[in-house]
Amino acid sequence: MHIIDKLSAAIAEIGNPTCAGLDTRFDYLPEGFAAGFAPFSEGGGPASNRADAIFAFNEKLLHGLRGVVPSVKVQVAYYEMLGVAGMAVFSKTLQLARELGYITIADVKRNDIGATAEAYAEAYFAEGADFAADIITVNGYLGSDGIMPFLKYAPQNGIFVLVKTSNPSSGELQDRKIVAFGNANSDSVYETMGEMVYKWGENHIGECGYSAVGAVVGATYPEQGARLRKLLPHTFFLVPGYGAQGATAADLAGCFDKNGGGAIVNASRSILCAWKKTGKEDFVQAAVDEAVAMREALKACRG
Amino acid sequence: MHIIDKLSAAIAEIGNPTCAGLDTRFDYLPEGFAAGFAPFSEGGGPASNRADAIFAFNEKLLHGLRGVVPSVKVQVAYYEMLGVAGMAVFSKTLQLARELGYITIADVKRNDIGATAEAYAEAYFAEGADFAADIITVNGYLGSDGIMPFLKYAPQNGIFVLVKTSNPSSGELQDRKIVAFGNANSDSVYETMGEMVYKWGENHIGECGYSAVGAVVGATYPEQGARLRKLLPHTFFLVPGYGAQGATAADLAGCFDKNGGGAIVNASRSILCAWKKTGKEDFVQAAVDEAVAMREALKACRG
Repeated sequence: MHIIDKLSAAIAEIGNPTCAGLDTRFDYLPEGFAAGFAPFSEGGGPASNRADAIFAFNEKLLHGLRGVVPSVKVQVAYYEMLGVAGMAVFSKTLQLARELGYITIADVKRNDIGATAEAYAEAYFAEGADFAADIITVNGYLGSDGIMPFLKYAPQNGIFVLVKTSNPSSGELQDRKIVAFGNANSDSVYETMGEMVYKWGENHIGECGYSAVGAVVGATYPEQGARLRKLLPHTFFLVPGYGAQGATAADLAGCFDKNGGGAIVNASRSILCAWKKTGKEDFVQAAVDEAVAMREALKACRG
Repeated sequence: MHIIDKLSAAIAEIGNPTCAGLDTRFDYLPEGFAAGFAPFSEGGGPASNRADAIFAFNEKLLHGLRGVVPSVKVQVAYYEMLGVAGMAVFSKTLQLARELGYITIADVKRNDIGATAEAYAEAYFAEGADFAADIITVNGYLGSDGIMPFLKYAPQNGIFVLVKTSNPSSGELQDRKIVAFGNANSDSVYETMGEMVYKWGENHIGECGYSAVGAVVGATYPEQGARLRKLLPHTFFLVPGYGAQGATAADLAGCFDKNGGGAIVNASRSILCAWKKTGKEDFVQAAVDEAVAMREALKACRG
């Protein structure tokens, strides 16, 4: 089945275009919980103990968030940081998420020349792969060669290509204007990347009207998000930057289409660390409450 | 010690600015060798068996190439492809290379927002990390935030930022012209990225005159390489694309400075698979012969 059809259906069923980001750092865990696995006060001891604690935390969240969010995004950097033990937990987290019915996004931002992109595609999309995910994020700086190998697995699997990222310095390159041909208006680098994404995805559009080749568009740049929504009517957006990075629901309005579709909004720290604001260590209930609050906040801006 | 001072000294000592790329695929292994680990004819069986075979192959090459090349580059995609077992072999390969005195480059092309780039920096540069390397490759599409966390480890550790990549489609974005201010000439995206790399590296220049922030510049684009060499006098180049990707020694001349320094040339498939051209399965001797031939070919073009 076309992965964005599947994602759109899951969002509609649950009524929540929220993706929970499992960018789980050991210091996001409540001390009492972590203590069962690793000596919290000594920085958590060996990486393998911290990795075990993180998996136990993820496991509880994945069970708790079922039916509350349709999708989870797992940021590989927080697992790579813990070495081989971390990568084992990255694998187990993706696998459990899949078993529980979530649409899984491996946030890996991989990129390389064609032959190497093939190896990455196999790492994430091949049948039975340890790191199997429905969708991965990729970086398109290398152009088509680095993208095509992933599309062999479309539309059952999809990619979100970095277009306009959510971080403060994203404009240093992405907002620079590209020289236009003839009398055309100049496009910025991010718009040019958006057009490349559109072309890569043209032949992979699903029944929902969106392609298996989507874009990463930071919530922290609402004007650019709205501009890209207009420019790329068949491109589904993964929108990071909500919550801890500073974007509010109002900033997201322009990323959705007129039916309130076409985008999924990721929140990581605001969900993972929601328990810190409650004064209690019940991180699952706090995460669920936060995801429900996000659903309600997004309802308003989806019109 | 400043990593590029160390690399420059190692190149000078051995007289070979060649980096051997351990982008080891199972099907690069001689059948007779692989058969001891995995059923070659059935595609190598489980990933863990193939990973073991690949480590044994890497191990022999690392011992054989000692004193012939100063540096090895390990392309993570070929290990990620084999899942958790592959990542364990990625770790073991880097560790053995370090123990044997090679300058180690983890070719990972990582990139993310600041908080996440910190996690990647820890994954590759922290003391005792499973994936510890001297230098990693990164992608600068996200701008400064995504680069700064790596520079906390400079100049003992370094980064090579993608500037002009070696693949056929690299020009789709990288060769586009950026609108200039005032009467200045337009720079291309790759030149703009080169200037960003230069600025990131300004405060990390070693005694050799080169910064711990280097650039990836594909050998397959000799004109652009020569242009960047002029534009970026303090930026050391990692030059992929030699051999199997089609670049010859003559294409590399412009990447070196007037003293024959300032660059290291990577070759992966042409070294790993050199045995295939000999009609014998002695892959170590074939790799050594190929690396020596590269040294001689590069000698001519380094002037």
